[in-house]
Amino acid sequence: MKKKWFYPLLVIMTLASILAQYFTQIEWLKFTLAAFSLLLWAALLGKSTESVAYYAGERLGGLLNATFGNAAELIIGIFLVKEGLFNLVKASIIGSIIGNLLLVLGLSVFFGGLKYKTQKFNSMLASHNTSLMLIAVIALFIPAAFLKQEPLEDVLDVSIIISAVLMIGYFLWLYFSLVTHRQELNSSSSNQPIEDEKENPPWSKWISILILAISTLFVAVQSEWLVHSVEAVAKAIGWSELFVGAFLIAIIGNAAEHSAAIMLAIKNRLDAAVEIAVGSSLQISLFVAPVLVFVGLMFGKKMDLVFNSYEIVAVTAATFIASSISRDGATNWYEGVLLLMVYVILGAAFFVVG
Amino acid sequence: MKKKWFYPLLVIMTLASILAQYFTQIEWLKFTLAAFSLLLWAALLGKSTESVAYYAGERLGGLLNATFGNAAELIIGIFLVKEGLFNLVKASIIGSIIGNLLLVLGLSVFFGGLKYKTQKFNSMLASHNTSLMLIAVIALFIPAAFLKQEPLEDVLDVSIIISAVLMIGYFLWLYFSLVTHRQELNSSSSNQPIEDEKENPPWSKWISILILAISTLFVAVQSEWLVHSVEAVAKAIGWSELFVGAFLIAIIGNAAEHSAAIMLAIKNRLDAAVEIAVGSSLQISLFVAPVLVFVGLMFGKKMDLVFNSYEIVAVTAATFIASSISRDGATNWYEGVLLLMVYVILGAAFFVVG
Amino acid sequence: MKKKWFYPLLVIMTLASILAQYFTQIEWLKFTLAAFSLLLWAALLGKSTESVAYYAGERLGGLLNATFGNAAELIIGIFLVKEGLFNLVKASIIGSIIGNLLLVLGLSVFFGGLKYKTQKFNSMLASHNTSLMLIAVIALFIPAAFLKQEPLEDVLDVSIIISAVLMIGYFLWLYFSLVTHRQELNSSSSNQPIEDEKENPPWSKWISILILAISTLFVAVQSEWLVHSVEAVAKAIGWSELFVGAFLIAIIGNAAEHSAAIMLAIKNRLDAAVEIAVGSSLQISLFVAPVLVFVGLMFGKKMDLVFNSYEIVAVTAATFIASSISRDGATNWYEGVLLLMVYVILGAAFFVVG
Repeated sequence: MKKKWFYPLLVIMTLASILAQYFTQIEWLKFTLAAFSLLLWAALLGKSTESVAYYAGERLGGLLNATFGNAAELIIGIFLVKEGLFNLVKASIIGSIIGNLLLVLGLSVFFGGLKYKTQKFNSMLASHNTSLMLIAVIALFIPAAFLKQEPLEDVLDVSIIISAVLMIGYFLWLYFSLVTHRQELNSSSSNQPIEDEKENPPWSKWISILILAISTLFVAVQSEWLVHSVEAVAKAIGWSELFVGAFLIAIIGNAAEHSAAIMLAIKNRLDAAVEIAVGSSLQISLFVAPVLVFVGLMFGKKMDLVFNSYEIVAVTAATFIASSISRDGATNWYEGVLLLMVYVILGAAFFVVG
Repeated sequence: MKKKWFYPLLVIMTLASILAQYFTQIEWLKFTLAAFSLLLWAALLGKSTESVAYYAGERLGGLLNATFGNAAELIIGIFLVKEGLFNLVKASIIGSIIGNLLLVLGLSVFFGGLKYKTQKFNSMLASHNTSLMLIAVIALFIPAAFLKQEPLEDVLDVSIIISAVLMIGYFLWLYFSLVTHRQELNSSSSNQPIEDEKENPPWSKWISILILAISTLFVAVQSEWLVHSVEAVAKAIGWSELFVGAFLIAIIGNAAEHSAAIMLAIKNRLDAAVEIAVGSSLQISLFVAPVLVFVGLMFGKKMDLVFNSYEIVAVTAATFIASSISRDGATNWYEGVLLLMVYVILGAAFFVVG
Repeated sequence: MKKKWFYPLLVIMTLASILAQYFTQIEWLKFTLAAFSLLLWAALLGKSTESVAYYAGERLGGLLNATFGNAAELIIGIFLVKEGLFNLVKASIIGSIIGNLLLVLGLSVFFGGLKYKTQKFNSMLASHNTSLMLIAVIALFIPAAFLKQEPLEDVLDVSIIISAVLMIGYFLWLYFSLVTHRQELNSSSSNQPIEDEKENPPWSKWISILILAISTLFVAVQSEWLVHSVEAVAKAIGWSELFVGAFLIAIIGNAAEHSAAIMLAIKNRLDAAVEIAVGSSLQISLFVAPVLVFVGLMFGKKMDLVFNSYEIVAVTAATFIASSISRDGATNWYEGVLLLMVYVILGAAFFVVG
């Protein structure tokens, strides 16, 4: 970060947040401090990801970011499964998916589109992302469609099979995208001028990785603090579990992806921005959700994959509109508006039914 | 119009229809005369739209036509909302959407395809139209999926939020397509030979606009007469409100779009034909439907956006097949057949359940 | 077949299967012998189809194969309708569709993709196939969505109308693809190197057709034997009618398509492989299913087209993922994995709910 005030502020806010966390019971104070501190760490995470991405190539950089960004979600999810709070886990899984596909992607496409008339990204990647998102929707839909009236044991068996299938699919996808078809999926950036190609990253390769690791750690820790305070704060206001899980937790949990993706989009690196937003939602549905089912088994907490009909409608709507927009490998500001429109409509509906 | 008999016939039929309307109570006579007269006015509307489109450019011309064509629907809709006939309004909204996407587009693509082996249109426009249609489906689907068991007040609140979101989206779409990305969305006609490029329009610019305005007025007035007679006639035969609203009213209300779109398609101006058919259905879902919700509020008639499951299935089916066909920016006669097949299937189903 | 042992083995296994069929009551013996014999005939069918395809051109060859491959399904279907076993007919129709779209196409794409990095096929064909599959889904979905609570007579009337529409659509599709737009839909193989272009077919044109006819006959007969034994065997194990119809019968009934499509894919003739897999599923939904409705009428067995919600979810999922993958006219091994993932997930769900 180039601003002189950044690092002092980061240290001060982090210390303040730690103090509030361990020595006070004032939820709104914990919340505000954690949120502000998180924002700064997320900014640093974004910057360091960009820097690592510079050394690793666009796609691997994006993948790294998605992985690091979702570490927070995974940790929170494990904690919630351990407590048996399955509804909240499911709501936050759905919320992360639609948050990434609609809010993060929408803002990236919108702000990127304000600066560049048309932004392009690898269309083979877009096509595969669409297919993978569809798999995720099918996998989340099938248990709800088939198993509502079946005995609990069968539901769990099918959930475990589906989880296993999804995880195998996810690892094969990594093998496919990083080994056998790496070049085909690589950035389309050679076809478009990148303005800041010459801009050197602020840190060396290993320093970048170190900063990435540290900032991811702090983002994870403070995400969790924030989530805890948020729950108390939200309940004080009177919001429902479904709305809090699917919107509030998800927005905060994805703050890192947010800032990083938008920053990349504004720099016309839409490939990396899409990779963060869509890749993150894919990772949650194909990796985090199945892992949580298996984690539940280990803890003796049997979590199935039966989502309620609101959650399925939301994921389906988000997937279809995101696919429709990304299919041609080109975006503009209005397509960002469309994504945000669906997010607002879903938000209003979830708020009422919650 | 080049035929000598056209204008005398137009005047005679219009006078006969006016006489029948005000001085008789014979519904089938009113119906037949209004229908015949409407047909002639619609033909004139089509011709004058073509002429205006010649001066305004393809897309703006298409937009103009869609606007003028839907003036009739909007007027009828306001009248129905004022009377509190919400089910009939909703059925006619759905009917207009599927009528445009399946019947008008189907006939245009079919007849255009009989003459030209493959017809092309701007594929960026096709892609955006697909996304917008998807938004419309989501916006109509969410209230039905989320709100069936919610209190009436919440349903209305969400309907108003969705209506506002749709209208903002519609105006931003106009700004996008007419200002920021006008050129990108412009006709692909430079890539294909247009046979009658040299054919001069029959009237000057201002005469064309005058004729467009007058014929739109008469189409609107006579559409309404027709609709009134049609209801009485249909009830005499024993058809249901749902079928009458979704098919009979919609077909007659869209007669103008019909003749104009098919005429343009046969002249290989598929861009303009698609703009009329798809643009018209978009305008109804993103503009007319929300406006009617707000009009209802003004009249103290609280209309929500909860459509029944038949209507949602019909709109979804129409949207998916129309998207699938228009996605590649090229059509042929068989794709017209596919659209018409879905229309016939839906017609049979609506007739039975009505 | 080049292997010396092939023809003697074929004759021996066929005789053994015939003996078992007519002179024993041991179901597992009938099953095993019919299955082994069928496998050999299917291999011969695949080889002869390839040979005929060499003389007829890729697409016509693929169409021939689909026709011959589905003769078995049609015969079995007629027999089941005659017995009034409507649920089993419907399950096997659905099973054939998803078996072709997911298992046959998935294995073809996967094994073809192991050998060739990217395989291409005519993208106009892919786009039309997508639209036709969508029509099939809509046609199977509408009766279930609209008619659940309607009187039986109306359900049958609508089923007959839909069947007629589908059959007209199917014949117009043949006219379109074989007459008016034959060239446009022809193989994209000119754009890609075909390795074994020089490899001569093993037989002359007429010998190939004769072998094709004979092997189709034996595949049909032995498919039926197998199906009968399979039912008894499956019931002994305790599997449900739905699972047996949709998976076991379908897998065995499509054995011929299987081996032929995979063989073609491995030889980089993906056009023909896709034509077999997708063409076969289209033929079942647009031709075999409607024919069975009319056959039912002739027998006085009134079969409607109301499928249960599991079947509709399965067909919809299969269609969407297959469309998403084939849309761009290019495939790779991972897209095969995605198709197979959905097949396994559906299999697990059907097994539990059956």
